[in-house]
Formats: sequence, structure tokens, C-alpha cells
Amino acid sequence: MRRIAFFLIAVVALAGPAVYMAPVSGQTDDDAVPIFGIKIPPGYRDWRLISVAHEEGNLNDLRAILGNDEAIEAYREGKLPFPDGTIIARIAWDYVPSEENNKVFGRVQSFVAGHPKNGVQFMVKDSKKYASTGGWGYAQFNDGKPADEAVHKTCFPCHQATQARDFVFTHYSP
Amino acid sequence: MRRIAFFLIAVVALAGPAVYMAPVSGQTDDDAVPIFGIKIPPGYRDWRLISVAHEEGNLNDLRAILGNDEAIEAYREGKLPFPDGTIIARIAWDYVPSEENNKVFGRVQSFVAGHPKNGVQFMVKDSKKYASTGGWGYAQFNDGKPADEAVHKTCFPCHQATQARDFVFTHYSP
Repeated sequence: MRRIAFFLIAVVALAGPAVYMAPVSGQTDDDAVPIFGIKIPPGYRDWRLISVAHEEGNLNDLRAILGNDEAIEAYREGKLPFPDGTIIARIAWDYVPSEENNKVFGRVQSFVAGHPKNGVQFMVKDSKKYASTGGWGYAQFNDGKPADEAVHKTCFPCHQATQARDFVFTHYSP
Repeated sequence: MRRIAFFLIAVVALAGPAVYMAPVSGQTDDDAVPIFGIKIPPGYRDWRLISVAHEEGNLNDLRAILGNDEAIEAYREGKLPFPDGTIIARIAWDYVPSEENNKVFGRVQSFVAGHPKNGVQFMVKDSKKYASTGGWGYAQFNDGKPADEAVHKTCFPCHQATQARDFVFTHYSP
């Protein structure tokens, strides 16, 4: 059984992108964001971890950046620009002190992920379709619904600051 | 091709545990931690994300908690105690302000994962083998080498504080 399982894993690694890019049944055109026409990529919460971060100020979150197979492979190989098919996901939660952890430590020390933040974001690489925005499409969903056009107009201007890294802020954390 | 890939994914989900628990070639008994005899689980960096956290004080880190298939399934189903075969991994990085992000935001706001912290930790569930420590074995590796016995004696006393959640601190973040 172990030998069979190992073989299947290898096949899936090659076939992975097709799986993740398959359409979600039940999604309609209303589920796509304006400008970029992106829908929520199925299974993104199961993607592998690229890195984590904490944003202070208005954001006040703990966040995780996940990537599909193309994203993880490109990061690990240091491949730039990211290949077409790459999707990077950003999920975030309220930044909250953990009273139960602090009790164990005997001091205020531990901050954990609280309620999920409204606003899950994705970057989708398609160098032809999104040529005018650095080859990336951008998407934000609030409570599973596409954010409005004004929100999506703010993505590329900000990401331009990281043009040298193919418009991606996050570094891979080994 | 899509249909084939999807079928294989389903099979792997069932066969997953056997894959992740397979021994790593080249690991010897010297690679196992004292007391609990645990070696580094192969492929743990590819496991799915349970949650993220920030510890202040001496730790001063950003951390990610990952789980193997048994861990993720138990968390999502709210299953307690965790089943035998569950492994939870804790990786951490230096907590560092991101100058390049802050430049874009125009203020100090962004803290990212820096250099990997020394000390990757695992909890391995085996209710018989580890009956005297709540059914969990504990392991810490520094630069890939098992930490000493004194370190491993500190794990269970601290985790006892979360006995009501089967000795696990981290909550799952959806």
C-alpha cells in the first residue's frame, strides 16, 4: 500500500495545476471580480504555505500567504517571472492576544489568529490576459462575494513597487 | 486529463497517512529525539496550514502550525482526542519589520518572517506509546539535529495546561 501511495503522489504533483484550475461547480459569472474576471480558486485553503506576516495599523491582522503548485515550485526554484497558472492566496485573521497561552507563559506574549478577516485576496498569473497589469490579475472576495471595481483598481498601483520581484511582495519562508 | 487527476487526488487523500509516515532514507537512530524517539517527519513543510501566531519576548517570532492529513481532518471535524497518527508541526521565523513593505505603506506597519528560527517542533499522537504524556510524543530539532533530553522534559508539563483540548494549544483558523 505504501508503494502504491507513493506512486500516486508523484502523478498528482504533475497533474496538480489542472486540478486546482478546474472550475467550481455552482460558480456563476456573478462570482467573478470586476476588471480581472477571477473566481475563487477551488481548494485554496489546502495550498502550501509561502509565508506569514503581521500587519499593524488599520489592518491589524495575522496573515498567511499560500500558493498553488506553480507558485510553490517557482518560489523554491527562485524562478522569476512566475509562470502562467501561478496563483497566490492571502488569507488573514484578527490579531488577538491569547489569554489562555499568556496564562501558561505567565506574561502577555502570545498573539494568535482570531476571527477570519473579511477580504480574501488572490493574484493570478496570466501574462497575456493580464499584460497591462504586469501579467497578474487581482481579486478580493468579501464574505465570498467579489469586492467592487474601486477596490480592484487599487491593486496594481501598489504592487508596482515590487516590479523587480514580478510584482509580488511576499518572500518564501523556508 | 482533468478527470484522471481528480480521481488520483481522491485516492491520495485516503492513502496520505501511509505516505507521510514512510521512513526517510538516510535517517538513523541518531536522528531521533531522546525520550520520545521521534525523527523529522518527511515532507512536513508541504503540510497544510492549521494557523499562525506571533510570540513576543524571548521568542520574538512569527510561526506557522502545520498538520498532516490526520491533523487537518480532525481539526476540521472538531474531533477530540486527535486520532493516532496525527502529527502537528511548528515552524518559526525571526519577527522582522519589512522596510520594503513599509516604504509602500508610508509607515511602519508590516512585520514579516525573517530567518528561520532554530528549533522545529512536532507533536506525534500515539495513545499507547506515549500514554504517560497524554498520548503525545514531543520533538524538537535544532538545525536538523535532535535537541537534548532536558529540552524534551519541558514539553509535556507545559502542554498539560491544554488538557481539555487534548494537550494542543493551537486552534484551527478557517
